[in-house]
Amino acid sequence: MRFLSDNAARVCPEVMAALADANQPDGAYDGDALSQRLDAAFSDLFDTPCAALWVSSGTAANALALAAMVQGHQAVICHEEAHIQVDECGAPEFYTGGAKLMLAKGSGAKLDPAGIAAFADTIRTDVHQTQPAALSITNATEYGLVYAPDEVAALGALANARGWGLHMDGARFANAVATLGCSPADLTWKGGVDALSFGFVKNGGMFAEALVFFRPELADATRYRRKRAGHLLSKGRFAAAQILAMLEGDLWLRNARAANAAAAHIANAAGERLLHPVEANEIFLRVTAAESAALRAQGFLFHDWVPGVARLVCSWDQPAAEVEALARAIAGL
Amino acid sequence: MRFLSDNAARVCPEVMAALADANQPDGAYDGDALSQRLDAAFSDLFDTPCAALWVSSGTAANALALAAMVQGHQAVICHEEAHIQVDECGAPEFYTGGAKLMLAKGSGAKLDPAGIAAFADTIRTDVHQTQPAALSITNATEYGLVYAPDEVAALGALANARGWGLHMDGARFANAVATLGCSPADLTWKGGVDALSFGFVKNGGMFAEALVFFRPELADATRYRRKRAGHLLSKGRFAAAQILAMLEGDLWLRNARAANAAAAHIANAAGERLLHPVEANEIFLRVTAAESAALRAQGFLFHDWVPGVARLVCSWDQPAAEVEALARAIAGL
Amino acid sequence: MRFLSDNAARVCPEVMAALADANQPDGAYDGDALSQRLDAAFSDLFDTPCAALWVSSGTAANALALAAMVQGHQAVICHEEAHIQVDECGAPEFYTGGAKLMLAKGSGAKLDPAGIAAFADTIRTDVHQTQPAALSITNATEYGLVYAPDEVAALGALANARGWGLHMDGARFANAVATLGCSPADLTWKGGVDALSFGFVKNGGMFAEALVFFRPELADATRYRRKRAGHLLSKGRFAAAQILAMLEGDLWLRNARAANAAAAHIANAAGERLLHPVEANEIFLRVTAAESAALRAQGFLFHDWVPGVARLVCSWDQPAAEVEALARAIAGL
Amino acid sequence: MRFLSDNAARVCPEVMAALADANQPDGAYDGDALSQRLDAAFSDLFDTPCAALWVSSGTAANALALAAMVQGHQAVICHEEAHIQVDECGAPEFYTGGAKLMLAKGSGAKLDPAGIAAFADTIRTDVHQTQPAALSITNATEYGLVYAPDEVAALGALANARGWGLHMDGARFANAVATLGCSPADLTWKGGVDALSFGFVKNGGMFAEALVFFRPELADATRYRRKRAGHLLSKGRFAAAQILAMLEGDLWLRNARAANAAAAHIANAAGERLLHPVEANEIFLRVTAAESAALRAQGFLFHDWVPGVARLVCSWDQPAAEVEALARAIAGL
Repeated sequence: MRFLSDNAARVCPEVMAALADANQPDGAYDGDALSQRLDAAFSDLFDTPCAALWVSSGTAANALALAAMVQGHQAVICHEEAHIQVDECGAPEFYTGGAKLMLAKGSGAKLDPAGIAAFADTIRTDVHQTQPAALSITNATEYGLVYAPDEVAALGALANARGWGLHMDGARFANAVATLGCSPADLTWKGGVDALSFGFVKNGGMFAEALVFFRPELADATRYRRKRAGHLLSKGRFAAAQILAMLEGDLWLRNARAANAAAAHIANAAGERLLHPVEANEIFLRVTAAESAALRAQGFLFHDWVPGVARLVCSWDQPAAEVEALARAIAGL
Repeated sequence: MRFLSDNAARVCPEVMAALADANQPDGAYDGDALSQRLDAAFSDLFDTPCAALWVSSGTAANALALAAMVQGHQAVICHEEAHIQVDECGAPEFYTGGAKLMLAKGSGAKLDPAGIAAFADTIRTDVHQTQPAALSITNATEYGLVYAPDEVAALGALANARGWGLHMDGARFANAVATLGCSPADLTWKGGVDALSFGFVKNGGMFAEALVFFRPELADATRYRRKRAGHLLSKGRFAAAQILAMLEGDLWLRNARAANAAAAHIANAAGERLLHPVEANEIFLRVTAAESAALRAQGFLFHDWVPGVARLVCSWDQPAAEVEALARAIAGL
Repeated sequence: MRFLSDNAARVCPEVMAALADANQPDGAYDGDALSQRLDAAFSDLFDTPCAALWVSSGTAANALALAAMVQGHQAVICHEEAHIQVDECGAPEFYTGGAKLMLAKGSGAKLDPAGIAAFADTIRTDVHQTQPAALSITNATEYGLVYAPDEVAALGALANARGWGLHMDGARFANAVATLGCSPADLTWKGGVDALSFGFVKNGGMFAEALVFFRPELADATRYRRKRAGHLLSKGRFAAAQILAMLEGDLWLRNARAANAAAAHIANAAGERLLHPVEANEIFLRVTAAESAALRAQGFLFHDWVPGVARLVCSWDQPAAEVEALARAIAGL
Repeated sequence: MRFLSDNAARVCPEVMAALADANQPDGAYDGDALSQRLDAAFSDLFDTPCAALWVSSGTAANALALAAMVQGHQAVICHEEAHIQVDECGAPEFYTGGAKLMLAKGSGAKLDPAGIAAFADTIRTDVHQTQPAALSITNATEYGLVYAPDEVAALGALANARGWGLHMDGARFANAVATLGCSPADLTWKGGVDALSFGFVKNGGMFAEALVFFRPELADATRYRRKRAGHLLSKGRFAAAQILAMLEGDLWLRNARAANAAAAHIANAAGERLLHPVEANEIFLRVTAAESAALRAQGFLFHDWVPGVARLVCSWDQPAAEVEALARAIAGL
């Protein structure tokens, strides 16, 4: 019973069907009819003019977004446990030409405006220090916490006042929207977000993420950088097809709700063991080594996050029986 | 009737089936069972120990291969019309940290050892000039010509004598092998090739190319660079599945033979109009503007390469009727 | 008798005196009084608001200038024999993050607008090709030819129409101005030049060149990039002192006139042997191997440029006797 | 009375004399006789074969040293207050192609092997994290503390065991040697240091630092990278002249001893106010805002390091009267 990673989950049937449907000759790269629909599809979803590009990984989406805002002699402020810092092998540095990530702190990998402002005030503005040009937040965070629209807006106001771009790593954006019940617009551009890495792969897709710019002019150079990075797929229509299928009938939200509900059920059973409230599809559980072993002995697969903490992730297609079994197993520890 | 690009063609049914089969939970990134089989599969195919990585585009494969051999203060020698120079928006420069492409000449985008040696002899070895560290050739070339094993070996001997790595852009490697009837080994490592970008997308795949290192130690750093570039797909098993399906029963060769045969049929009809012999699946045709228009009026889609030359590409699934119709149309010009 | 390179010449006494005068404690980096005077000094000289930064080499000046105008996914158009292409070990690529140099042709390393326009028209604007963002010319050129103000203005008009920045490598800018008798303004910003690498080292300085921006806002990020590149000298006042000494009383022009006059004298003796007219301080001479050897046997040191061509360079302090001796020796060949 | 920075101090007379002596025509770049003597001079000083390159700033020396050891997908471990992290505007990232600096802690900007080992053990070795390839320490540190030979050797043993290069930022290497009374060899290669940025500018030089490789083969590519970075000065003999003058008769040590003695005298007066022991030429003093103001009112210039701490730096030529005056002023607070 896999609770290892939502990356390990299945591709959902609607996406498989869309791939089959797309298997007709069409223009190469993003010259096909499906790719050409993306800008409009996201502009509809977000209720504002957007430029949207498919890419094949969240790492690429994040790095391209940051490269659109930050030059090599500048810096990105992010949480010290942000995915861009600890799990992307330096992709932001690669794409920006060596910009520095400046690492801020905050419980559950969340940043707050006062803390960021204080942190930024310690950076000298002379030429001996790289200057921040973007703030990057993850929603839902690496610990499965969400930023509500007002929290995003407060960070957006700070970024705006300081002249920084605001990037949202939304590998689990769908889970955040599902939890908050807000509109995608409320959680992004209305709060000052300039670029969103909108994840689909963890949520039922195969190999397509969307990089959405709410300042569409940022996409112009990005289209060249995407090609230059080898991310302009030859048969891009298959990437576009996945994304359009996920948007169709709000499949992205339905899948996320399913994953969140599974996590919530387990969280209920975990009670005091939870390291953080469960606000998306990830559960961080305080367990002893013996308890960890006991869970594994019952067939549950999961990551040891740090000693004493297990990470369990629910997928869009997590079988109800597995969820129930895990909830009981945790309750029975 | 599309003769625009093999990128525009369908994904072949075996690959679609393999994607469906792979749609089970498994390890993320390249931790799945299919990805773990790649090294062995290519070692078998090439009859030598190989390290093989899937990537999602030929541009990424090329750029990663070059970055494994060349540092920023060095250079790559390639043809002035090589794909890495004219169609990848500077990807080699990006991945190598700014290495220079040194552009050599040769008919049909083919390079010959004497010409390259003479070219290289004009490069001063002082620190004011970047020094070549790799030679990159394309087989089949951008004009659909093939390097035979002895031609590769002659270039390999030169590269070896000069201390350069040898990279082969094999976006149409399958077409070259199909034409030559040689073994994959004969056309690569036996002739001194260190790294091969082995293309599958133009040949029936969806989004998977293989980067094959015949000096497996070159893959070690490349695995980090692939991640850093955002090319380590979250659900990598779907990339591996495509490649394995293409290798199964030599599907890659069958598809290439089909495309080549279609092109050969058209070439027969073209006679003196051919800019180059047709040795793969591309046809470069001398046509007047009026002739071009006449072909288009009959429903044929193709690229105007340069004024007076049309490029027509046959796919693995080019319908026989379309091939026959085109052959007749050309003959009738 | 050295005619090898103006880099090999002495530092002129006024510069040595300025270094001695500057040897008092003052602010570090560019916080000293001398460095703070540079913007005003160049604004006066050029009769327009300028931002001017000292750097320690022409290569650094050129690369920083280009990095202010060109991003990694873009390109610089320059002559195929430009110093930035053949003598800087890829510095432009390093500083721009891997931009491509697109190489144009022209006699004597001079570019002309019609040729550049035709060349640029061959570049596709799709995302598969890097797009030019700057044109770089050298004045005087690598062959000692000068662009007159109207020639600069014609290239400036082209650059402006295409949206490119215009950079002038002025390692021998002083020699060009001395020859043309125009104002520094006429040869630069009035003709559309955005950034000038103004050379002093070849002309009597020790280790200071000026990077002059005629769009002063380009200097803002450059100040950070200069530090990041290690070119913000700890004791920058010694760099500023040299430049200010060279500007004082038009020493830069006097030195250049001396070097030019020496070259002109030799050119007179050379007649038909000249590969190009001598318009600055460099002479390219057609000589057989035997003639070359004969000159060397008489004690003259110079570079073999290519087989059959010798390069002879006159310095600001070239002794009159050496000049006369060389003129006679050439006449006597 | 300036205690702001040793960068603000005078160039010492022996260096000025050496510049005058070097003002004869000679080979350009590093082709002159003086530059060609550097390898031997440092090999003598360190009693082992060295390769030594002049560069014009410590930032360039540090960044080139790191680039010789670390690729873009790798990382450098250094102190969180190391100069390379907080005062070089991202130069290491620029030169390495975007390597990450991993920031460790330690009092007085000193690192200890146990702490570094524990820190390094938290880095996963999978491809999602950049892997350390070098350890960089500063001797004397940014707080004026020294690593003794056995401390260097312990870090060297750790670096060796982990496969990391060891770089020493020796902007104040002379001060450290002067304090410790050890041999330069004891403090460097005998303890496992691979590359040393040997500072001269803070110690009486004008614009020359030495980058010394104890694994001479590391210099081969660095010579190209130095040119590529614009740090191969046209008239390099003037850089070499300074360094050779500083080595002559151990001028470097005499100057450092003078600066250290001045600092020691002030430290004696400072007693409990010292933030750290004074082991080189820097004094970090606990002062209230009122005390700070009182010192300034008496004519002392210095940096406010952080609130409550003043930094005072003594130069090689700090007048005895100023030193005495400062000691009294501090005692009288």
